[in-house]
Amino acid sequence: MEFTARIIADFLKGDIEGDPDVKVSAFAKIEEGHPGTLSFLANPKYEKYLYETASSIVLVNRTQPVVMPVKSTLIKVDDAYRAFASLLELYASAQQAKTGREEPVFIAPSAKLGDQLFIGAFTYIAENARIGDNVIIHPQTYIGENVRIGDNTVLYAGVKIYHDCEIGNNCVLHSGVVVGADGFGFAPQQDGIYKKIPQIGNVVIEDRVEIGANTCIDRATMGSTVIRKGVKLDNLIQVAHNVEIGENTVIASQTGISGSCKIGKNCMLAGQVGLAGHISIADGTKIGAQSGLNSSIEEPNRNIIGTPAFDYKDCLRSYVIIRQLPAMKKRLDDLERKAS
Amino acid sequence: MEFTARIIADFLKGDIEGDPDVKVSAFAKIEEGHPGTLSFLANPKYEKYLYETASSIVLVNRTQPVVMPVKSTLIKVDDAYRAFASLLELYASAQQAKTGREEPVFIAPSAKLGDQLFIGAFTYIAENARIGDNVIIHPQTYIGENVRIGDNTVLYAGVKIYHDCEIGNNCVLHSGVVVGADGFGFAPQQDGIYKKIPQIGNVVIEDRVEIGANTCIDRATMGSTVIRKGVKLDNLIQVAHNVEIGENTVIASQTGISGSCKIGKNCMLAGQVGLAGHISIADGTKIGAQSGLNSSIEEPNRNIIGTPAFDYKDCLRSYVIIRQLPAMKKRLDDLERKAS
Amino acid sequence: MEFTARIIADFLKGDIEGDPDVKVSAFAKIEEGHPGTLSFLANPKYEKYLYETASSIVLVNRTQPVVMPVKSTLIKVDDAYRAFASLLELYASAQQAKTGREEPVFIAPSAKLGDQLFIGAFTYIAENARIGDNVIIHPQTYIGENVRIGDNTVLYAGVKIYHDCEIGNNCVLHSGVVVGADGFGFAPQQDGIYKKIPQIGNVVIEDRVEIGANTCIDRATMGSTVIRKGVKLDNLIQVAHNVEIGENTVIASQTGISGSCKIGKNCMLAGQVGLAGHISIADGTKIGAQSGLNSSIEEPNRNIIGTPAFDYKDCLRSYVIIRQLPAMKKRLDDLERKAS
Repeated sequence: MEFTARIIADFLKGDIEGDPDVKVSAFAKIEEGHPGTLSFLANPKYEKYLYETASSIVLVNRTQPVVMPVKSTLIKVDDAYRAFASLLELYASAQQAKTGREEPVFIAPSAKLGDQLFIGAFTYIAENARIGDNVIIHPQTYIGENVRIGDNTVLYAGVKIYHDCEIGNNCVLHSGVVVGADGFGFAPQQDGIYKKIPQIGNVVIEDRVEIGANTCIDRATMGSTVIRKGVKLDNLIQVAHNVEIGENTVIASQTGISGSCKIGKNCMLAGQVGLAGHISIADGTKIGAQSGLNSSIEEPNRNIIGTPAFDYKDCLRSYVIIRQLPAMKKRLDDLERKAS
Repeated sequence: MEFTARIIADFLKGDIEGDPDVKVSAFAKIEEGHPGTLSFLANPKYEKYLYETASSIVLVNRTQPVVMPVKSTLIKVDDAYRAFASLLELYASAQQAKTGREEPVFIAPSAKLGDQLFIGAFTYIAENARIGDNVIIHPQTYIGENVRIGDNTVLYAGVKIYHDCEIGNNCVLHSGVVVGADGFGFAPQQDGIYKKIPQIGNVVIEDRVEIGANTCIDRATMGSTVIRKGVKLDNLIQVAHNVEIGENTVIASQTGISGSCKIGKNCMLAGQVGLAGHISIADGTKIGAQSGLNSSIEEPNRNIIGTPAFDYKDCLRSYVIIRQLPAMKKRLDDLERKAS
Repeated sequence: MEFTARIIADFLKGDIEGDPDVKVSAFAKIEEGHPGTLSFLANPKYEKYLYETASSIVLVNRTQPVVMPVKSTLIKVDDAYRAFASLLELYASAQQAKTGREEPVFIAPSAKLGDQLFIGAFTYIAENARIGDNVIIHPQTYIGENVRIGDNTVLYAGVKIYHDCEIGNNCVLHSGVVVGADGFGFAPQQDGIYKKIPQIGNVVIEDRVEIGANTCIDRATMGSTVIRKGVKLDNLIQVAHNVEIGENTVIASQTGISGSCKIGKNCMLAGQVGLAGHISIADGTKIGAQSGLNSSIEEPNRNIIGTPAFDYKDCLRSYVIIRQLPAMKKRLDDLERKAS
């Protein structure tokens, strides 16, 4: 798809400075721009690139001073970043308007399919599954028995959803995501052998949830593992059985949430964090990267880090001193010598 | 499937108090019960729910006092938890009695298949693979050349097993598990380029092993990476080449075991633990979450934690003092001032 | 395939001591050898196995003294390890000479396929994909729209490559690898809801890159996430959007690289390391296992470890003292008592 500066300026209600007929077919960062691409300048730190870039079109704020000659066509708008983001969204939504059914697929006779679906080849949809409207199911996806999937949800290639799980509307699940594998529950017997505890619950994922590649969300032993509205999970995250993650909480890559944890709303967990089982995290908690928590956080909106995690600033102070420990030990030795 | 209280009480050899004809079709936690579900009460801490629950049937210990009116039908048994677990198992085993072959599948002519198999659509079984009896192979599974799979094993959707690997009887491998990818072996050359060391060994998984979603077990450089009988691995675990994990050892999510490690029997490794290469862990060792080990543990049955890991109680004592380091440093400064 | 000692000695330009007609069909470690296998002895530490092994053939250095009777046929060469490695490579390359196309596969009409391909069943190749010569695509692989794959590359079963990504020549991607899933980018709105930032860049993987099972490499927001020539990534690694990893850098399992990090050439990152976003790591940096970095490393060739990471030797010294903290605190208490 190619667009002229004129068409883009009309869409953005912006003003053109330069050639209105120049065409672009892709986006680029301003520092990596080349002919045929559109860039934006919002951060004054990058102003020098405005005079260097080879991008054909650059979106700039109306307030942006232009103090040297510019090769690109400029489109002046009230908020260049927001205008750019709206073009990105337009572009992205245009990419996904795919419907139809490729062959071969396996669709059980009792499965109920909505309207305007895309179903890629080698996809498997089991008995009694119910799929909403406008769902995009990329190839090689597995949808188990009795699974429900809401409207407008996108499943990328190779997603696996075990039986009885529920996915809401407007969700995005990336390749390799596994929803509903058995929780890790085994009862030790007297001879040291472990006996499996059947995991007969499910996973419930509410609306507007995005789940990154190869992330795993285990089914509950009984009841449901629940991911609330608007949660965003990065890649390679572990969510164990019977966990509940509150609305609009965001979790970065490789974090692990042990069984029966309850995480509040609007929390932010950085990468590689570990939470021990059966603890609660208050709303609005921020947890720094690689932290380990073995007890609940009851006061909301705290900012913590470390293993075991404590207040962010205090922890950083302690971490500085860890580097000085050999020197401190020497000072202590000296003092003792003097005192004796 | 629906069952009356009478049928369940007969199966459990229990006594009914209430309506013997009430029917249930699902299980629920007592605090989440609703009509049509069966719950149990074993932990006295939850007794109040006995009087509040909407479950149609509750299993209780014969010794359980009932001091207020109860809406549910009670079935009194010697051990309510054990009785409940046996119903769960009955239920779970009923779920898996699936046989037959869906289409399309790819089965090489030289593959040998046992009796009473289920083979889901889009499954690939390569040359000379040998599959035992009563094996359940969910859709989109990959079974490489010369792979052997024992009786009664379950492979969930999308499991990948590379050539020459062996899986025992009564194993469960969850979606996204990769068995037998190449070990991470590269020889540095003089120009900084790495040359691949061919990985020509395999993986041997003995009986009754369960492996969680997206866990990776690499093939040996030569010989075998070995997972002994009864081992239970959680999700997203890394098991490198030539590792051996002893019988009935249990490992939680996101733990990483480096090449040629030898872990004993009956060990418990918590989540996000890391083991450096070529170390041995004695039988019965317990390793706390996020620990890092760079040397062997020779004495059995120790309980360790930390990076580098040391005795559990000592480590927790040190961790408490880490929080006090800024204060300790100040005290040391003061003492030095006084002493000078 | 079976080979006699004579054929192997001719290939290696080695000298036979023993039966030149003995046959082998497999490799084994010298300590695990059995009839029909070939082993090598390079490390003097293992010399005793030379007299115990049941391997039919053992490669030894010409300089190796033989002081007791040996049952195996010996082949004497200048460098036993190198000779063995060359046999391994010969063996491994013979394994992969597979071509042809299995059925069913899904190949879009506009896809361009090179010569001498193997395409396994249930593989999906989307519109405008371009695949080079001698590429081996194992079953159940997904290759998205406009993807380019160079010559001699191997994709194991179930690899997923999103649209617009590029893979070089002579690469190896193991099962479960996800290339090009969306970067983790969300803009917080005033109501606490997160809005997805479209991720319209791609991933560029240069030549001779190997990527371990279930590793994830996210596409750039704009521009490219870049993995340079000769990089080797282990299993279950997270590479976030807009990261660049320099030539011949090696990264062990479960490490996570946050968005926009730039890692230099010839670095070695051990397992479970975490890098915060937007930092740079100088060429030749070595980072120890489980380290956490939140700032750039500007001086090349440093060896660091810890969270936050600092000099390897200093860090180990501090770690030793962490164990002594309770004792140090007591000593400080005593000194204060004396001083007061």
